[in-house]
Amino acid sequence: MTDFNRRSLIASAAAMAAMPALAASPKAPAADAQKKIRAAIDKQLPENIARIQDWIKHPGIAAENWRMDEACAYTMGLLTDAGFQTVKKMPTKGQPGIFATLDAGAKRTVGIYFMYDVKQVNPAEWSSPPFDARITNKPGWGQVIVGRGAINQKGPEAAFLAALHAFREAGQKLPVNLVLVAEGEEEIASPNFHQIVQAPEVMAALKKCDGIVIPTAWQSPNGSVAINLGSKGPLEFQLIASGERWGKGPKGDIHSSQHAHVDSPVWHLVQALNTLVKDDGFTPAIDGWFDNVRPLTAREKELIAKTAASQSEAQAKAAMGVKMWINNEPWQQSLERLASQPTVNIQGLVAGYGGPGGKTVLPGRAEAKLECRLVPNQTFREAETKLKAHLAKRGFGDIEVVVSGGYDPTETAEDARVVRAQQAVYARFGAPATLYPRNAGSWPGSVFTQPPVSLPAGQFGLGHGSGAHAPDEYFLIESINPAVQGLAGCTAGFVDFLYEMAVAR
Amino acid sequence: MTDFNRRSLIASAAAMAAMPALAASPKAPAADAQKKIRAAIDKQLPENIARIQDWIKHPGIAAENWRMDEACAYTMGLLTDAGFQTVKKMPTKGQPGIFATLDAGAKRTVGIYFMYDVKQVNPAEWSSPPFDARITNKPGWGQVIVGRGAINQKGPEAAFLAALHAFREAGQKLPVNLVLVAEGEEEIASPNFHQIVQAPEVMAALKKCDGIVIPTAWQSPNGSVAINLGSKGPLEFQLIASGERWGKGPKGDIHSSQHAHVDSPVWHLVQALNTLVKDDGFTPAIDGWFDNVRPLTAREKELIAKTAASQSEAQAKAAMGVKMWINNEPWQQSLERLASQPTVNIQGLVAGYGGPGGKTVLPGRAEAKLECRLVPNQTFREAETKLKAHLAKRGFGDIEVVVSGGYDPTETAEDARVVRAQQAVYARFGAPATLYPRNAGSWPGSVFTQPPVSLPAGQFGLGHGSGAHAPDEYFLIESINPAVQGLAGCTAGFVDFLYEMAVAR
Repeated sequence: MTDFNRRSLIASAAAMAAMPALAASPKAPAADAQKKIRAAIDKQLPENIARIQDWIKHPGIAAENWRMDEACAYTMGLLTDAGFQTVKKMPTKGQPGIFATLDAGAKRTVGIYFMYDVKQVNPAEWSSPPFDARITNKPGWGQVIVGRGAINQKGPEAAFLAALHAFREAGQKLPVNLVLVAEGEEEIASPNFHQIVQAPEVMAALKKCDGIVIPTAWQSPNGSVAINLGSKGPLEFQLIASGERWGKGPKGDIHSSQHAHVDSPVWHLVQALNTLVKDDGFTPAIDGWFDNVRPLTAREKELIAKTAASQSEAQAKAAMGVKMWINNEPWQQSLERLASQPTVNIQGLVAGYGGPGGKTVLPGRAEAKLECRLVPNQTFREAETKLKAHLAKRGFGDIEVVVSGGYDPTETAEDARVVRAQQAVYARFGAPATLYPRNAGSWPGSVFTQPPVSLPAGQFGLGHGSGAHAPDEYFLIESINPAVQGLAGCTAGFVDFLYEMAVAR
Repeated sequence: MTDFNRRSLIASAAAMAAMPALAASPKAPAADAQKKIRAAIDKQLPENIARIQDWIKHPGIAAENWRMDEACAYTMGLLTDAGFQTVKKMPTKGQPGIFATLDAGAKRTVGIYFMYDVKQVNPAEWSSPPFDARITNKPGWGQVIVGRGAINQKGPEAAFLAALHAFREAGQKLPVNLVLVAEGEEEIASPNFHQIVQAPEVMAALKKCDGIVIPTAWQSPNGSVAINLGSKGPLEFQLIASGERWGKGPKGDIHSSQHAHVDSPVWHLVQALNTLVKDDGFTPAIDGWFDNVRPLTAREKELIAKTAASQSEAQAKAAMGVKMWINNEPWQQSLERLASQPTVNIQGLVAGYGGPGGKTVLPGRAEAKLECRLVPNQTFREAETKLKAHLAKRGFGDIEVVVSGGYDPTETAEDARVVRAQQAVYARFGAPATLYPRNAGSWPGSVFTQPPVSLPAGQFGLGHGSGAHAPDEYFLIESINPAVQGLAGCTAGFVDFLYEMAVAR
């Protein structure tokens, strides 16, 4: 047994001692059952680690339509192994989803959201092959698995499955029933996820749920974790200017000297892009973009102030390699901006020659990859319509707008049971939890929170990982930081969360 | 002997019959010597073809610093084989040049300019490997060699060398002495060529020359060829925006949701670019850019009108895949624009994610590759200074301006001997030649035409090829079009040109 595991057990013991006071519920799980489950978690640790590694070794990348069927089948196998009684592949217009149920004969039912696709990789940027899932030591954190999908989202999802394995190993019944929906297109902004969720049998199952969560592992170095009450919604799209479509400029690349009398699709795209943000370089300038943007409420500002006080600005800057926030604003104001402002971001530019130095061509085509992040009460459809109208009005109607994905922003009330259960478990584990009004990133929670499903939805998880969408993505296995849980603690957190969901008022 | 060669001989015979009337010179070459040389050209045709193929198989790409020493040494060997008595490697701060002389004991000396580097390639875009130099049939033209450098500039240059081989094979002395300067950085806009030309021994040799030409092969389908009295000068540069240098935005790529409170180097670059041209998408908007731009003279407009009348607008559009010229201007006006207007062209954009679909990153770096084409009396130094001042004045002083090459525009007087010799030879070959005030492309002629060298400079060549800087670049070997010369005619043209330079007034 490692130091980590001892710490994990000590933390669990402390948590159990504290439980009655915190959970304040007559139905709190018996210390005896908890003990057996924790022992099972420790016993199963090697196989739980191997499960994450093996999952990373079975990738599927929706953006490249690469190994998706295999990835879906593999994930379905994991769910069956973990005890789900029905596991069904759900075809969509794009990649298939999964619908799974586990009936424990319990009173309450909890929804779980999984994604099984991962972000693209550039192996040249990685210090070990992204699908090798190697275990290495990460200074300041401990032993980690390095691999694409490690934190986003296979590590936390596998820890959730490890919790189910631990219940079975310990001979304990789950305190809640489970309804799980998974998609394989999260990384391309979930263009077909509503098809899965709104299938009649899935809708019927979700209607029984008290809320739905996606497993996460986002503890900061001081152990703190944010409880997000919502997320922005993305509108992901590519703008493509071409001589062919424009009717001006060349069809393909021609010698650049011809630009003296031939129009340039690249300048056309640059000029179109330039209309999308104001001179400050960040405020969206698309016609009517702010019509439905709701300013932060007093309560939301209060929550952000608490977050600003509890989180290290210096650490955040260092982690991102950023010297100053927009307008050199102070931390709290910057976090208000982060939560409240819609964005228009350029993810990439592709045109003409891309090698070393220059090459004298006038390109026939230019592409910009962008995404807008939407805040309440903007909607995905509204944004798409306004973007296209804005471009057309300014003489850029020929520029192709390829919407590759997106959905509405999502919000869940502070007093929802999934939120209160999270708070209770984090407190029990000594993880300072701050309510945060809105994650600047996106997840398709609106598919659950909006009609017709209308279910509270959020993230939950102890533990740590980082590098989502970046090279050397990792998930923490054995923590050397007493404030942060490793895999066993992350697994134990899910056990407690299910117990808490069973009893929370 | 092929059909082509027969046609070549018939053309030569006709040319010789017409010569006295056209050249009108008592020193016109003896028909006997000419006959022997034409016979030698036909005899040596297979080895002349093989020489072009082998040269293409020995590429050097300065932009990628790829195989340049090998390419230089190979070219030096070709010059020695062709009879140059001194062939010297000329080191520069970049790639080496070559200085070669051939003293024929003649009264006059002619300067020859060679380039031995070639443009970059993307083999995926080619129908045969770009350095395989395969011979194929090109519908409408005849047998061609396909390969990088075939027309730009190895085919025509090798034809010039073939002319020297023919003189030797025929036992004829050259009618002029030769001074040859070559560079290996033409395709990166000749950043160090002045170092070669202005070396004291090269300067001394060039001072003896009556003018200097680069071998070309630019006959149109109707056999016509333009005699360029000048070329625009390029300023080739890359603009690089980075969070590191800016002090705003991220150092590397980060999750795109952070753009809500982190500046974007990509937007910064897009906004900087947008200031460089007017709303029309093509007129340069750099402060003071037109201060020294000299409008077309009445004579220049007259020459362009003749070109417009002699060249097919439809063919030009079809060759480039263009449906309309800028502002939908008519042909003649469009050619005036082509000759007279300076340009700011975007060759390429490189930022963030470039794969299929999107990827939610906020990139830490964005690069645009551009080139300006300068017209008289703009200068390279003036343009560089004004560009940097323009950007700095508008808050883009942090954007790195990497100037990768360039030089001034070049002009040669209509009555220069190299121009009159060209006209005489084209006429003798029945190739309609139009004087054209300014090629919209660029070659480093200003290194010769400006002080301290101050030599008339131009292009000369019969024959045909196309696809410079593009896939499937080719050079015509055996022409099926009676109006256009193949390799043998191209070679014979150089023979006549040297004779003409010896006698022209």
